[in-house]
Amino acid sequence: MQISPLLESLISAFRCLPGVGPKSAQRMAYHLLQRNRQAGLHLAQELNEAMINIGHCKECRTFTEQEICNICANVRRQSNDQICVVESPADIFAIEQTGQYSGRYFVLLGHLSPLDGIGPSDIGLDLLKRRLESESISEVILATNPTIEGDATANYIAQMCSEFNIVATRIAHGVPVGGELEMVDGTTLSHSFIGRQKIDF
Amino acid sequence: MQISPLLESLISAFRCLPGVGPKSAQRMAYHLLQRNRQAGLHLAQELNEAMINIGHCKECRTFTEQEICNICANVRRQSNDQICVVESPADIFAIEQTGQYSGRYFVLLGHLSPLDGIGPSDIGLDLLKRRLESESISEVILATNPTIEGDATANYIAQMCSEFNIVATRIAHGVPVGGELEMVDGTTLSHSFIGRQKIDF
Ligand SMILES: [Zn+2]
Ligand SMILES: [Zn+2]
Repeated sequence: MQISPLLESLISAFRCLPGVGPKSAQRMAYHLLQRNRQAGLHLAQELNEAMINIGHCKECRTFTEQEICNICANVRRQSNDQICVVESPADIFAIEQTGQYSGRYFVLLGHLSPLDGIGPSDIGLDLLKRRLESESISEVILATNPTIEGDATANYIAQMCSEFNIVATRIAHGVPVGGELEMVDGTTLSHSFIGRQKIDF
Repeated sequence: MQISPLLESLISAFRCLPGVGPKSAQRMAYHLLQRNRQAGLHLAQELNEAMINIGHCKECRTFTEQEICNICANVRRQSNDQICVVESPADIFAIEQTGQYSGRYFVLLGHLSPLDGIGPSDIGLDLLKRRLESESISEVILATNPTIEGDATANYIAQMCSEFNIVATRIAHGVPVGGELEMVDGTTLSHSFIGRQKIDF
């Protein structure tokens, strides 16, 4: 028997969050109802605003509520001639925290995956190509995940860079192979930036 | 530097959920933005409705969006002469899942804690007293948590029951001492109901 349909709906809605099973969904709902309804209302509003207003930067494709994100709009960043390519916006966050990098970014929002029908234009490589043509870029740092797909995507972009005589480098595999970039600790990630290697053809 | 103030606000809003640290808050925000904005909007709406519309049952004090909850409004439950006292609404959920109990409930929404200034009226014992006086109840099952405070609260209520010549029983300590009732598995909780003992004075 349903004790409270609204409560049951809330518990099942929490299941959309990564890593939240039936038990923790229930704990979350009871916790907010019993101890912090204001925080629950605040979370509802932030969620609503974020889902509706956060789009993608027209330059680098990261998450932002502006046309152009704060990194792309930064004059000091623009005068840096490096561009770092990552798979997801969360990777930018992780890299920024190392303090090791002060250039621009490009977010693929995925990786090449021919079996799933995900080709170059699905990960924004047409836009990246236009940037390589029009901006003064001397180095593309490939910081895709150290997975088979991430490596293949990095190689594809490196080949693209060679057409424009732009140096392509790959961050060092100091990061554990097979893992996800955003889960790596800052020190390991710093080392992987310092030990990056030029990709030759 | 803040890349997206809206995103930062969302990440920090997720911290209100129990067991959610900075890393998982970040994962939650990125996951919804990247893969499931509809689910994010749905969660926002469910949260909002639940926080605003879920109140407490006038009979048993559990969470419900109605005046009287479905359990208290159930005629078969009303003809049962047992009442089970628990600390939180989540405990009702756990007990209902054992299928071991078919009486009514009373939710304290806490426990006696003189040091924190939480006395009998703060946990609804005036309301419980009125129910003991006016309803035909033959047994009060004390299912408060097996902690020092839960035991003290059970003893206090048992004494109250003796004034009305109502039998008070305590669920067996099959449940691990020091733990929280809602975390106990169904089998252990069933056993603790079957092995309950009368409290004598
Ligand atoms: Zn940007
Ligand atoms: Zn009720």
